[in-house]
This record gives sequence, structure tokens and C-alpha cells, in this order.
Amino acid sequence: MPHPFQVTARCTTTRARTGRLSLVHGTVETPVFMPVGTLGTVKSLTPEDLTAAGAQIILGNTYHLYLRPGCDVIDRFSGLHRFMNWDGPILTDSGGFQVFSLARLTRITEAGASFQSHIDGSRHLLTPEKSIEIQISLDSDVIMCLDQCIAYPAERAAALAALEITTQWAGRCRKTWREQSGEKNALFGIVQGGMYDDLRRMSAEALTAMDFSGYALGGLSVGEPNQMMYDVAEAALPLLPGDRPKYIMGVGTPEDLVELTARGADMFDCVMPTRNARNGQLFTRRGTLNIANSRHRTDTAPVDSECACYTCRNYSRAYLRHLYQSRELLAYRLNTLHNLHYYLDLTARMRSAIAEGRFEAFRKRFYADREPGGAA
Amino acid sequence: MPHPFQVTARCTTTRARTGRLSLVHGTVETPVFMPVGTLGTVKSLTPEDLTAAGAQIILGNTYHLYLRPGCDVIDRFSGLHRFMNWDGPILTDSGGFQVFSLARLTRITEAGASFQSHIDGSRHLLTPEKSIEIQISLDSDVIMCLDQCIAYPAERAAALAALEITTQWAGRCRKTWREQSGEKNALFGIVQGGMYDDLRRMSAEALTAMDFSGYALGGLSVGEPNQMMYDVAEAALPLLPGDRPKYIMGVGTPEDLVELTARGADMFDCVMPTRNARNGQLFTRRGTLNIANSRHRTDTAPVDSECACYTCRNYSRAYLRHLYQSRELLAYRLNTLHNLHYYLDLTARMRSAIAEGRFEAFRKRFYADREPGGAA
Ligand SMILES: [Zn+2]
Ligand SMILES: [Zn+2]
Repeated sequence: MPHPFQVTARCTTTRARTGRLSLVHGTVETPVFMPVGTLGTVKSLTPEDLTAAGAQIILGNTYHLYLRPGCDVIDRFSGLHRFMNWDGPILTDSGGFQVFSLARLTRITEAGASFQSHIDGSRHLLTPEKSIEIQISLDSDVIMCLDQCIAYPAERAAALAALEITTQWAGRCRKTWREQSGEKNALFGIVQGGMYDDLRRMSAEALTAMDFSGYALGGLSVGEPNQMMYDVAEAALPLLPGDRPKYIMGVGTPEDLVELTARGADMFDCVMPTRNARNGQLFTRRGTLNIANSRHRTDTAPVDSECACYTCRNYSRAYLRHLYQSRELLAYRLNTLHNLHYYLDLTARMRSAIAEGRFEAFRKRFYADREPGGAA
Repeated sequence: MPHPFQVTARCTTTRARTGRLSLVHGTVETPVFMPVGTLGTVKSLTPEDLTAAGAQIILGNTYHLYLRPGCDVIDRFSGLHRFMNWDGPILTDSGGFQVFSLARLTRITEAGASFQSHIDGSRHLLTPEKSIEIQISLDSDVIMCLDQCIAYPAERAAALAALEITTQWAGRCRKTWREQSGEKNALFGIVQGGMYDDLRRMSAEALTAMDFSGYALGGLSVGEPNQMMYDVAEAALPLLPGDRPKYIMGVGTPEDLVELTARGADMFDCVMPTRNARNGQLFTRRGTLNIANSRHRTDTAPVDSECACYTCRNYSRAYLRHLYQSRELLAYRLNTLHNLHYYLDLTARMRSAIAEGRFEAFRKRFYADREPGGAA
């Protein structure tokens, strides 16, 4: 099992840390935020845009790519990198989350998850083995084990059952990965257990015993209160090996990134910056700004005068509002560039703060900058 | 009246010519194709994209910008250039065409055109004076006179009436331009007269007598047969002063650009490359290609292996088809980049061919390259 992670600095008062993750297609400095490129594209952006915004690694969705364009298409390009023209690292999810949240008539057995495509209704069976095979064919730098997510709230019995199947599947994923991947690309295990600390512990111990390149907390940010998510992460993260990267899946807001970094998380992904951009919600240090608001109509100032992104360097709020109100395609692109830059810059600033021993001061400043009621 | 045009080369067997048009925001080599940026953006592209694709000058739509975002917004930026971050030349239309084709309840009197906004139903009166004032406030490099377009086919009497009102308005436009513009930016007159050669002559003579920086043929490409358009242009273009740029509005296909350049036209604009891109229709030397076609599903080749555009240098037909079928935002951008590059490269190749005395050979080759039934 490749152990490509190295801790490079630690905060002395929190569990925040920086690290370096060496993957086949490049090195990633953590804490890191991974933009979501569901269908082999981070919506509206080119790879050059992503690099300019500071992206180090992006996420691809196995479920979506398997259905469309299909693995036979991506195989012609020997993987996702050349297909989409991104030569940096890629992490792929297992497909499990979408099978539970997006597909229809999903049925779980020990064998795997059978489901109906949300696109054309065709029936498929996603087994642990198949998920790994697809991710290997995508040439993913970080392959995720197939896990079973549960909704919130969930009974303890349901959480336990999902955890047990997740553990069993993790073993089969590991076996397939070992036999078919050349053990070149990293493989991460996913801790489940719902909001039950003892189940999270059970899951963490079982996965740690198997030895993975890294570990993720799945099943968070599924509707639970924020503080509950922080508490579950605070209890579970220290149970994972300190020399492995720790990834919290599908999270979150800027506050979530700061709080979970403080609790020892290294990796994040979320559709929030990209999806909110397309809805005109722009992140700034002072809070969130709705570009559709009529008070921006004649405003010649940029979204955030301290932001160094392409959008803020070249365009006014008035122009962005005009594009957004006119449903112009460029609106989505300029908004997305800004929001991704905000998230990527936030993690870059956390890395500097941790490395320079001032993470607590950074965190205080982060909250002090935010205006009640959103950005001006 | 500024006369910013200089003929730089002539074809010896056709009326094709190259020229240089010196405008406030830069110099334009002709024959030139002007991408259409209706609402202060060429759909999906940034100014940097336009420059990379070879755009020298873009077109803005007075009617659209007047309604949205409104002149008071653009005034804050002292014109369209800074508002949209394009520092090259801009030509604006008069708004007349949209008032006739897009607005509702349009009524023409000698005073001007009264109409109802297609967005919110508000009533407006567009006079020749107002059209020029708006274009001056946009800081347009090339201002167009307000004209009255007619549909095809049109009775001679209707064509004559529209021509007469267009001539009268041209005089008022010229007066407003002289009094209010500082005579800094160019002003073009628009020749009308439908498909009637004698009316086109009457219009051309009346406008030439007034003296404009350049002249346009309006009311073409409105549904008439292609050959009729070529014949009307062939008769009308020589009636315009040889030392002024000649612009054919709203035209056209690649074939139209070649044929009308051969007949002495210098400037073109059309939504075809950008609109067709968004519908998956891609231009190539061999003809048009529908990227949605399933035969591109696994094709690792670019749209056109001879094309030097960003899209063809970096992406396959399979990827473009995947993006297009998935309605991904990046599809529109990559397709638009390719199509605009095709149009801009076509005019660049015409300029070289004319300058090097081989325009007829170029034109033969242009047709020889095209495959019956579209591109492979
Ligand atoms: Zn910004
Ligand atoms: Zn191309």
C-alpha cells in the first residue's frame, strides 16, 4: 500500500496540520480543497482556469462518468486525464453516494448496489470490485472504497448494518486494488457509523487494521446540525493513523473548512463554491454576497477588492450583475472562478498560518472579518 | 468626417481588396469578421479568449444594451469598453434592426420608431438622434445610422418608403454625430432599397453625397435566395466610394464571406459562428460537422486536425460530444472558440491571399476542400 503522505507542520494548540501528498500526477499540499468535476469538467472552466485559480487536485464522479460518456470512451484516452486535458492529480469517489442519492430503485445486498440509471433507466450492479475497476480505468490518483451511506437521522441498527457492509466491501476493494492496479495509485478507506461515536470507532479500527493510503469520513454533511458534524469529526479523526491523510467527504462551507482543519482534517471537496456561483452567491471574507441584488446595479467595485482572482481583477459588480441577470454564459464562468479562488485561497492561507504557527490567530481573524448578515 | 480607411492591396481579377481601418481603440485589417457581443459579452468568452481567437473588433447591440443594463450603468464606466473589459475597437448597430425584429408594437413615423421592450413591455421611442446619443455614450468606435429594415419580399413602394425615411434619418444622425461626438468616432451610413437595384443606387447616391466614414448594405440576408444577395451586393458595392470601407450587415455563411469579399465587401458580422457553436454545429474547411452525432462518440481526433484553435489543440471530438450531450457549460465555450477561430482564420487567409495576388486560387481551393454532405 503506497503511503504517500508526510506531515510538514503542526499547530500547537489545535489539531491543525499541514502535509504533502505525493500522487502519480503530482504533489498536493494539505489542507486542500478539491473542486468537483462531476462529468470530467469543473463546470464552465478549463484546466488552465483551474490551475490559475490555484487548484491542485480535482474530483471526478465514478457514477456519472460510468454512465456518461461510459468507460469505453475514456479507455480510448487511457484514463480521465487525457480525456479532459487535466494532467494534475484526480481523486474519484466510489459511485456509492450517487447510487444512493441519485439513482432509482437502488437495492443493497452484500454483493453490491443494484440500481437504475437516472438518465435512461438502464439497470446496473455496482459491486466493490466493479467500483475499483472503473476507478483504475479512469487512472484515478486517489481511489475510494465503495461504502454505504445512510441518511440522517438513522437508527443505530441501520448505522451498524451500513458500517458492517462498508467494512466488508473495503476488504474486497482492497483486494481488487491490489490485484489489478499495480498498487500505483492510492486507495482510501471510508469510515462510516452515522452520528454514533462508538460505531465510528468500530469502523475506524477495522479500516486501520486493513491499512489504507488514507482515510475518509463519509456520511457527514447529510443534514445533521453543524455542531454535531464537528463533534463526530473531533471524536473520529484522532482514531485514524496520524501519518495518513484524513479526508472529510462532501464538506463544506468556509466555516466548516476552518473548523474541521482545526480538528485535524487534511482534505475536503464540495460542490458549494461551484454550484453557488451558478446561483449568483459569491463568497467573500466578509460573508456571502448575492450578485443579483439591485444594490450592485451601478457598482463599479469588484466583488472583493482584496481578492486577486481573474474576475475581481477585471470586472465590476455591475458587470457581473448584468451578466447574471441576462443569464449570460460568461456569468457562470466568472462567478465560478471567483468562488473557487476564494476556497483555494482560504486553504492556502490556512496552510501558511499553520506553517507559521499562527493558526489560532488566523481562525479568530476569519470570524472577525465576517459581517453579520453577509457581505456589504 | 473621419476617413480612417486605406486600401492596401487589390485582387486583379475580382473586386476583392485588403484595407486598414484606423479607429480610436485600434487598427483593423480588412476583410474583417466581427464577432457579435450582443449584451456586452460574446457569449461564453472573455476578451482574452477573443484576442486569442484572432478578433480585431467586436459588435455591440444598441437596442439590447439600452434596455439592459441601461445607459446609466454603462455611463459609470465611460462606455462599453471598460464595462466589459474589451479595449479593442467596437462597432455598434443603431438598434433599428432589433426594434423591427424583436420589439413589439413597433410604429414608424418620421420622428423615429416607437416600440415596446421585449423584456418588460415598457414603451420607448428610438429616434435617429437618440440612437446616435446612445452609441456615443457607449463610446463606440464605429457608430451606425438608424435605418429602416424591410422584410423580404417587399413591394417596390414599401422599399422606396423605407429608403426615403432611412435617407432622412441619415441626415439627422449625421447632424447629431457632428454636434455631440467630437467627430472622433467613425459614422457609417446604411444603404437600403430592398432587392431593387435602382433603389439601391438611389440610396447609395444620397448617402454618398452626405459623406460618411464608411457605408453598409443593410436589408440583406433577410430570407432572399443566396444568388440574389450576391447580385444585389455586386450591383451596389461599386456605387459606394472606393476609398471607404464597405460593410455587409448580418452576413453570413463562410461561402457568403468569400463571395462578398470577391465582390468588394470589407466588413462582416453574423451570429452564425457563435449561435451554431451553441447548437453543436462546428465549421471546418470540409464543411459543417454536428458534434452530437454518435459517430464522434469514441473519436480521439480533434474537430479539425488542421485547426490551430485552443479547442482543437487540446480536446477530442469524443470529449466535445460528451460535454455537448451532457449540456455542460464548457461545451458552449469550446465550440464557440473553434467556430470563431474558423471565421477569423478564414478572413485572415483571404487577406493573405489578396495581398499575395492569389485570391482566385484561394477561392477555388475553398470550394474544392468542401465535401458534399458536410465534414467527415
Ligand atoms: Zn475574486
Ligand atoms: Zn478548432
